[in-house]
Amino acid sequence: MTNPSAVLAETGAAHTTFVDRHIGARRESDIATMLQAVGYSSVDALVQTAVPDDIKQPTPLTLRPALSEVEVLAELRRLASKNRTAVQLIGQGYYDTVTPAVIRRNILEAPAWYTAYTPYQPEISQGRLEALLNFQTMVQDLVALPIANASLLDEATAVAEAVLLMRRANKAKEAAGGKTVLDADLLPQTIALVQGRAEALGFEVEVADLTAGLPEGAINGIVLQQPGVSGRVFDHAPVIAAAKERGAMVTVAADLLSLTLIVPPGEQGADIAVGSAQRLGVPLFFGGPHAAYMAVRQGLERSLPGRLVGVSKDDAGTPAYRLALQTREQHIRREKATSNICTAQALLAIVASMYGVFHGPDGLTAIAAQVHAHAARFDAAVRAAGLQTTAGDFFDTVTVSVPGRAAEILAAADAAGYNLRPIDADTLGVSFDETTTAAVVDAVAGFFGADAASVDGTAVLPEALRRSSEFMTHPVFNTHRSETQMLRYIRRLSDRDLALDRTMIPLGSCTMKLNATAEMEAISWPEFASIHPFAPDTQTEGWRELIDGLEADLAEITGYDQVSIQPNAGSQGELAGLLAIRGYHHSRGDVQRDICLIPASAHGTNAASAVLAGMKVVVVATASDGTVDHEDLKAKIEAHRDAVAAIMITYPSTHGVYDADVRFICDAVHEAGGQVYIDGANLNALVGLAQPGKFGGDVSHLNLHKTFCIPHGGGGPGVGPVAARAHLAPFMPGNAADRSNGAGGVPISASRFGSAGVLPISWAYVRLMGGEGLTEATKSALLAANYVAKRLDEHFPVLYTGEGGLVAHECILDLRGLTAETGVTAEDVAKRLIDFGFHAPTLSFPVAGTLMVEPTESEDLGELDRFIDAMILIRREIEQVRNGDFSAADSPLRNAPHTAAVVVSSAWDRAYSREQAAFPATLHTGADHPGHTASQDKYFPPVGRIDGAAGDRNLVCSCPPIEAFEN
Amino acid sequence: MTNPSAVLAETGAAHTTFVDRHIGARRESDIATMLQAVGYSSVDALVQTAVPDDIKQPTPLTLRPALSEVEVLAELRRLASKNRTAVQLIGQGYYDTVTPAVIRRNILEAPAWYTAYTPYQPEISQGRLEALLNFQTMVQDLVALPIANASLLDEATAVAEAVLLMRRANKAKEAAGGKTVLDADLLPQTIALVQGRAEALGFEVEVADLTAGLPEGAINGIVLQQPGVSGRVFDHAPVIAAAKERGAMVTVAADLLSLTLIVPPGEQGADIAVGSAQRLGVPLFFGGPHAAYMAVRQGLERSLPGRLVGVSKDDAGTPAYRLALQTREQHIRREKATSNICTAQALLAIVASMYGVFHGPDGLTAIAAQVHAHAARFDAAVRAAGLQTTAGDFFDTVTVSVPGRAAEILAAADAAGYNLRPIDADTLGVSFDETTTAAVVDAVAGFFGADAASVDGTAVLPEALRRSSEFMTHPVFNTHRSETQMLRYIRRLSDRDLALDRTMIPLGSCTMKLNATAEMEAISWPEFASIHPFAPDTQTEGWRELIDGLEADLAEITGYDQVSIQPNAGSQGELAGLLAIRGYHHSRGDVQRDICLIPASAHGTNAASAVLAGMKVVVVATASDGTVDHEDLKAKIEAHRDAVAAIMITYPSTHGVYDADVRFICDAVHEAGGQVYIDGANLNALVGLAQPGKFGGDVSHLNLHKTFCIPHGGGGPGVGPVAARAHLAPFMPGNAADRSNGAGGVPISASRFGSAGVLPISWAYVRLMGGEGLTEATKSALLAANYVAKRLDEHFPVLYTGEGGLVAHECILDLRGLTAETGVTAEDVAKRLIDFGFHAPTLSFPVAGTLMVEPTESEDLGELDRFIDAMILIRREIEQVRNGDFSAADSPLRNAPHTAAVVVSSAWDRAYSREQAAFPATLHTGADHPGHTASQDKYFPPVGRIDGAAGDRNLVCSCPPIEAFEN
Repeated sequence: MTNPSAVLAETGAAHTTFVDRHIGARRESDIATMLQAVGYSSVDALVQTAVPDDIKQPTPLTLRPALSEVEVLAELRRLASKNRTAVQLIGQGYYDTVTPAVIRRNILEAPAWYTAYTPYQPEISQGRLEALLNFQTMVQDLVALPIANASLLDEATAVAEAVLLMRRANKAKEAAGGKTVLDADLLPQTIALVQGRAEALGFEVEVADLTAGLPEGAINGIVLQQPGVSGRVFDHAPVIAAAKERGAMVTVAADLLSLTLIVPPGEQGADIAVGSAQRLGVPLFFGGPHAAYMAVRQGLERSLPGRLVGVSKDDAGTPAYRLALQTREQHIRREKATSNICTAQALLAIVASMYGVFHGPDGLTAIAAQVHAHAARFDAAVRAAGLQTTAGDFFDTVTVSVPGRAAEILAAADAAGYNLRPIDADTLGVSFDETTTAAVVDAVAGFFGADAASVDGTAVLPEALRRSSEFMTHPVFNTHRSETQMLRYIRRLSDRDLALDRTMIPLGSCTMKLNATAEMEAISWPEFASIHPFAPDTQTEGWRELIDGLEADLAEITGYDQVSIQPNAGSQGELAGLLAIRGYHHSRGDVQRDICLIPASAHGTNAASAVLAGMKVVVVATASDGTVDHEDLKAKIEAHRDAVAAIMITYPSTHGVYDADVRFICDAVHEAGGQVYIDGANLNALVGLAQPGKFGGDVSHLNLHKTFCIPHGGGGPGVGPVAARAHLAPFMPGNAADRSNGAGGVPISASRFGSAGVLPISWAYVRLMGGEGLTEATKSALLAANYVAKRLDEHFPVLYTGEGGLVAHECILDLRGLTAETGVTAEDVAKRLIDFGFHAPTLSFPVAGTLMVEPTESEDLGELDRFIDAMILIRREIEQVRNGDFSAADSPLRNAPHTAAVVVSSAWDRAYSREQAAFPATLHTGADHPGHTASQDKYFPPVGRIDGAAGDRNLVCSCPPIEAFEN
Repeated sequence: MTNPSAVLAETGAAHTTFVDRHIGARRESDIATMLQAVGYSSVDALVQTAVPDDIKQPTPLTLRPALSEVEVLAELRRLASKNRTAVQLIGQGYYDTVTPAVIRRNILEAPAWYTAYTPYQPEISQGRLEALLNFQTMVQDLVALPIANASLLDEATAVAEAVLLMRRANKAKEAAGGKTVLDADLLPQTIALVQGRAEALGFEVEVADLTAGLPEGAINGIVLQQPGVSGRVFDHAPVIAAAKERGAMVTVAADLLSLTLIVPPGEQGADIAVGSAQRLGVPLFFGGPHAAYMAVRQGLERSLPGRLVGVSKDDAGTPAYRLALQTREQHIRREKATSNICTAQALLAIVASMYGVFHGPDGLTAIAAQVHAHAARFDAAVRAAGLQTTAGDFFDTVTVSVPGRAAEILAAADAAGYNLRPIDADTLGVSFDETTTAAVVDAVAGFFGADAASVDGTAVLPEALRRSSEFMTHPVFNTHRSETQMLRYIRRLSDRDLALDRTMIPLGSCTMKLNATAEMEAISWPEFASIHPFAPDTQTEGWRELIDGLEADLAEITGYDQVSIQPNAGSQGELAGLLAIRGYHHSRGDVQRDICLIPASAHGTNAASAVLAGMKVVVVATASDGTVDHEDLKAKIEAHRDAVAAIMITYPSTHGVYDADVRFICDAVHEAGGQVYIDGANLNALVGLAQPGKFGGDVSHLNLHKTFCIPHGGGGPGVGPVAARAHLAPFMPGNAADRSNGAGGVPISASRFGSAGVLPISWAYVRLMGGEGLTEATKSALLAANYVAKRLDEHFPVLYTGEGGLVAHECILDLRGLTAETGVTAEDVAKRLIDFGFHAPTLSFPVAGTLMVEPTESEDLGELDRFIDAMILIRREIEQVRNGDFSAADSPLRNAPHTAAVVVSSAWDRAYSREQAAFPATLHTGADHPGHTASQDKYFPPVGRIDGAAGDRNLVCSCPPIEAFEN
């Protein structure tokens, strides 16, 4: 208790600040307890020892002063008011849409969904896995191809991935040097992005009007767009047939909504379909985040990039979902990877899938028909007024020829609050969408001097192009029509999962910290969410002020000179950074520098990104203490002296330690003419203490979804800004949609500001914390990690430590000895934690057979102790195995997690009790009314241990029919 | 599947409307299934038969056309933009506050909290009961009295209830005709409200300056205010002592925040403390809803009105919460009731309690100290400028004397965006609050010509008035300091409960229908939520347009001439209606008319309200078919011919039937000179089909939290508008805060528009549905109720039916025969439904030993069938009792609900299996991916059957200490 008089004496003393809310352990007594366990007298003393002197930041961060939550929201409202919403008719890949309120509030704005992690632990992820399986099924049905993934980053990236897939799959043409042909009616940002990737990888891309037939020469694959950016709907069947005839593969970038009415690409012979699911209920968000999709024909599924949900069974034979075919993925294949895509756009894919669930096939068709009817009436009106429009058929977009008058019409529309698409001085585009009303059509026709009221808007799609096949026939798309049903379905799915709103998620390298509500609130405000990425600058002042401010703050924090927030995932940040290095070397004539040195302990994505940047990966060995092997590094540099383009290191290393030799490594590479890429995955251990831009890095990417509080969303969105020193600035990502002004390097994302829509989160976090608060957070993260490491070391040895026996912000617990002695594996421990209501730590990365724990600064001492106590109880169970109380195979560890059905079953015959299975913690849940026991707030996973391999052998990646579930 | 071409042909066909989202069973095939079961060929035919011809509405409702969700939100934004937010310094019982974002998003905006029902079924309400117990404990600690209830409607009502409590409790002085004395420094709205109540009940109220001592004469009780409306903080100890000396009781209306610094009323000898918890995180909401509190000294707890949470034990001995002392309540005591309060302000009390949990005693004290320091600095500044301020001590409010200049200063402040309190031509009030910043103090001082920057704002509370005692020492108020902790605590509590987001809540008479997100969204927009109730009209145009529109719509729907939305609960609507009747009779000189006829089957609240309106209740018998006994009615009218003031009936009756004789009843009472009050509790069966204002009613109240979609919020807020024919219009509720313009009758709520803050919900509902949609909803509710009745009748006989064997919108299932035969009670069935994941129907109202089921229009056929199937399975278990498979005492029915701890226990020795206990539905959960079984989505209640009587015998109404929970 504070003495009120004492408080009174502090006139106007501010009460609790946001820093106190963000950091879990703020009480003096808690900090003292933790320091005592770690053996330090103060947090500063601990930090002083842990962080090597030669990288320490000499002065505190100079950021703007911290704001309160009220002030931050006021400031965000000010910025929002500097944006201007308009009727968005620009199209070009982005369309306004109605996010059903029940989905917005209960998914986009619900912590149970947005704080969830990527579903790598499938037993506690069945809800979001089902939602993602629904997404796959919806896409498969709409495009008429059998396998779709659960999301890529944006449409342009998806096309680039499709082009690479065609190059891998079409080996004959690849050997023959076949080129990739892009139809000229593709979205311009797509063409620019593919060209950038091709340049780095050294293959030929030709842009051609494929309605005029295929170009000459060997063709690896072609990419078509339906409808084209011009709005044109074209019968692709002939050109697809011709391409196949010539041994080329075919990708179609298709608008999902249009496919409710139009013959889908799969029925016309396409090998691959890609596109954006944005208009299925995901706000414009000034360009992102949105979920892109990719679907492929049978035979290509094992080459499909991105995440794929599949159906398998649990240990009781119950159907269960999990991520399938993970061996395809970059974190497994490393330098053999064919894609560097790591993050998906899970939260947005879930929103789109729920939109499909809520509207169903009939609803989507009705929406599409309405959009098309509006376009048809507009087309008829302007043609009646004597103007020329899109040659041929169209769906939602009409291109109008207005010789010499485009600017004038555009300006009149803008003044009235309507955004049209400027194409050239003589041409404008108009794209209609779900939000279009008859009044909008009337008004827009008016800008063109046409009278829409007087025309009949008969639908105009020709019979031959009309879809006749059924889609989305699964019950899930034909049940939830009332809001009550939808609400309960959303709740039911989220209840199957564990997210940050129920438990700490101590995932090493993933930094699962608080996603504060005040940080999240602004993202759904219309003045941020309803802005088209190609809206005129006059309408986006607030957005750009926010982005400029955030980039400047991140530059100050990292010690770099320039930041681009364009990359919409960490992997894309890596690619952007490596392409900047490549651009730099090439600009100096060092075109032979194509070796990227990567330590063995690196994130798998590093190697994959290097491959995509056209580099060759050379692995540098790890020394026994976990650091980079200096001798091997020197040898590798020597072996490739003139070819070294870069080294990619993570700092603190993926071993969770501040290695003391980072400057030595940077110097060695610099000396050889190489550049230093410092992966910012572990920046949460550096903010305010050390700056990669100052201790040797030339370029880094950051993960705003780790250090800067963007929630993981069940596996995306991510934001991976690239930060670089001044000499690399000219090679930072350029604008894919507008290559005319020539500024910038290779574009990385479809839209200029990537996943702009979620940037207010990181912006707010930095403004709420201020420099001092951010630094306190880092120190608290160090304290928490060292507390966990010290308390658990005697039970599970901590594998690597640095100066003073300290770790950085995470620690690796080594299970290998125990596994050798008892057969109990790290996976068993990870799954057993579920029975205690915890999400598992990172499993077997970066060292197989270990668990990596990162508590972050946001966990309070009570939750840390609850975790530590659970681990100690698990350790006792391992002893029970050693003592022969039960075998490893029959232990509660191997049988974990335990479902309600298992522990309630009359047929229980195990060597341990039901109580031990279900309520292993004799501890209280702790934090609230102490009477509530673990059993009262027990989380039961909906399925038991899942057999992933079985699912991969018998791949099922769409919603299974009812019969599949019958026992 | 729709044929896309067919859809295409309907040019621009609108897709799903809101009506399709609100109503559960919209599919043709589902409706056909239901009609077949009921035995009608069409819904219209069913309705035609069910509703008596002589009350049928001749023409459809003429409301404004239905809007889409997008249109409704746009219209709400337009209205919001017609309100103007300002820095609110008016005070007078309402203060701006910061709702922590984590609480706003996860409680106020979270369906799990806002769709919950009143916790009458405690086993599925442990979460909100704990939150309400926290509220009680916080209040008890702050006011230093041992028992507090979990909320009253507003401060003025709470004072009125305290006055009545004193009159009941102080029997000696009551017998002596002792008057009630109100201090002149009470809030003016409080004084007006108490005077209105006293006039009806016929006791004397004197308003006096109690700082000058007690007035002469016999005094029943006194009411003081701390701080007074003038801002004055006064040492009440002497006047309290004097009052006790004279045999009077003492109530103090106290500001909770101030009590962190000031000696609390309990320590000064007060018997009762009351007040508002609004400023603890609840938005201004233009006057409501806010939670008021009442706390009493030992000995008064059984006289305390409102809901009281107490601690008891479940059947396994686990501590468990439930509503205590329900025998005090109006629904039990009926015409012996001493209060008509039924609804509480649960959701707002929960918000306030969470604010206390999040800030803790230190945080609250710091906030209070800061507020006080701002006030002190302002006071010093204006005094330095030569102005006179509040005589004596103050906390947050300073009254400034500005002879002749009040209007001018007020206008200057208004122009700058600051609202001060106009007191008279020479005086202004300024109240500071949590949101006040130093800049606000500077600006406000400036309006008075003072310079705050130059003064030192030393705190000025005298030592004698400073609080020294501790408060809120329970761990719950000293644990959850980080947002992560708070988020998890909120989630954990809500997971213990069942609300509409997980199951239907088939509560007869409570109309638990969809609370659509689009209806809910606007309530937290600052332009609605941050408006002070006494803000100038120029700032509230949007609010008033919305309220006028809603009142007009409700008049059209009910067929009355005028509606007032002021009553902030159904009970208050009843009181308002009866006071209007009383006012009417008195205006005609019929002062002897004080008999209120009430059928035996009426809601208990009816009788209680009649008592409070100064009437005598005469009960009219029920005939065997459930209708009003005509002979008894005639006899009662005859016996009291000249004294009949009114009859109160519910239509359709509480038996869930459209009685055919309603016109006969109305005519009989009218003929005797009485007025007809039609309780609108069951209006959900009438909207669009019949209008009480046209078939015989003179006045009705409606429940916006039933028929018009305001969520129940776990037991409030409610809104109970009163609707009347033109002759009663002059007696509709007047404005308590401003009696000067004389318009209107007795004020019912502290603020002019009652629970204004939640009116956008009902407004949006009516606008989204339109007249046709509302009528469809009513018909769908009839169809659903008749479907359930028909399907269940063979298992549990339906007690009452009307024309064609039909029920109205609900049905009563008669368990009495089965109970007599087997010993299984209606309560057993209600509790057993929890094991199936259902909330129970209404238990033993209006007929003991029955269950009343109201499915509403929002439940889909799948959920209705799931409920029916559960009831049939329960019926089979009753057969098992009859067959001797197990005794009633050892049956899964009597042992229901089953916790996880019970069914997992190794010690299972019951006559039925664990599986039957925990997973009684062999059915699938149904609606989504069909593979998920009931066990996967199982809800386990945190406690088993609760022994309420034991808890009442040993009353514990504050958070129990840790030791209480130890086994």
